[in-house]
Amino acid sequence: MQVIRSKGYAATTVEDVCAAAGVTKGSFFHHFKSKEEMALAAVAHWNAVTGALFEQAPYHRQADPRERVLGYIDFRRAIGQGALPEITCLLGTLVQETFETWPAIRAACGDGIAAHADVVAQDMAAAKALYAPDADWDPQVLALFTQATLQGAFVLAKARGDDAIIGHCIDHLRQHVANLLGAGAAPAFHQETSP
Amino acid sequence: MQVIRSKGYAATTVEDVCAAAGVTKGSFFHHFKSKEEMALAAVAHWNAVTGALFEQAPYHRQADPRERVLGYIDFRRAIGQGALPEITCLLGTLVQETFETWPAIRAACGDGIAAHADVVAQDMAAAKALYAPDADWDPQVLALFTQATLQGAFVLAKARGDDAIIGHCIDHLRQHVANLLGAGAAPAFHQETSP
Repeated sequence: MQVIRSKGYAATTVEDVCAAAGVTKGSFFHHFKSKEEMALAAVAHWNAVTGALFEQAPYHRQADPRERVLGYIDFRRAIGQGALPEITCLLGTLVQETFETWPAIRAACGDGIAAHADVVAQDMAAAKALYAPDADWDPQVLALFTQATLQGAFVLAKARGDDAIIGHCIDHLRQHVANLLGAGAAPAFHQETSP
Repeated sequence: MQVIRSKGYAATTVEDVCAAAGVTKGSFFHHFKSKEEMALAAVAHWNAVTGALFEQAPYHRQADPRERVLGYIDFRRAIGQGALPEITCLLGTLVQETFETWPAIRAACGDGIAAHADVVAQDMAAAKALYAPDADWDPQVLALFTQATLQGAFVLAKARGDDAIIGHCIDHLRQHVANLLGAGAAPAFHQETSP
């Protein structure tokens, strides 16, 4: 996961992965037939690890669905700071360059993002039913928009060589979602860093 | 530009570029010392072409800065449909995999995205001065958020193998920006496609 997030899929060699993992090429090929099979296993592992991370996060235990939704966004802001290869998304990084050329990897990334968005959409649907039942937006689309904002914030952080833009983008995302859910005046934008 | 947008930087070979351009390798190396130099030239060309596209677009001639801002977003929606290698961003694709390993490419992508965001931010600042002078958001940050949403929408479109999500994400972006600029009730979300 770490090597692909640092240099992308095509530039990652089996030798790179073996060096990072401290294993031999023989050991690698005992487990995986190819780099592609390794990448698919990395996606499955990523989905399991991140799924558990969100499920066990404190926001997930809030009784009010709107608190869960806004708590999820705040949680993404809290974990969205640090070294970019460690905080950015394996799936978004992988799919950016493989979508036309590695169909199985694209499908795995698409399934992983969709599954996570579905979890977010469930809380958004419950919050909408309580706080914005007559609004014309779709919780499923809003959940995907949330993921798009996060993925794009990672791209901008890479382009700028600076993680600060991630928090700034999540502030705007939070304000939009709070508005849609009738959460009243949004909190002031974080001022700790200038863009 | 087309080859990199289809398969990413590392997977792109000089042979691929020569085949797509219909030139010989000798001709390629007459113009560029390396694949990296070619990619930097592609970024410069991209910036020139897209800069002219936005400058000549009809929205750019609106007198009201808020109309220019919302017109820009509508224009991005209009050009955000089609075959993904033809409508996605060269810079976002390049930087996703090169940010740690190719510093000159990262810098060029960062500069290109920042320069475009600066143009968008000028209209946002003018619109804020007219319609939301006391609000606590920063036009520069909002312009970067706009770029993040677009970049992330491209990532999701690739993951889903479907360009429709781009329009859905831009609808949410438009509603947020319209709200910040006091544009009143946002238009209904486009209903032409379901996610």
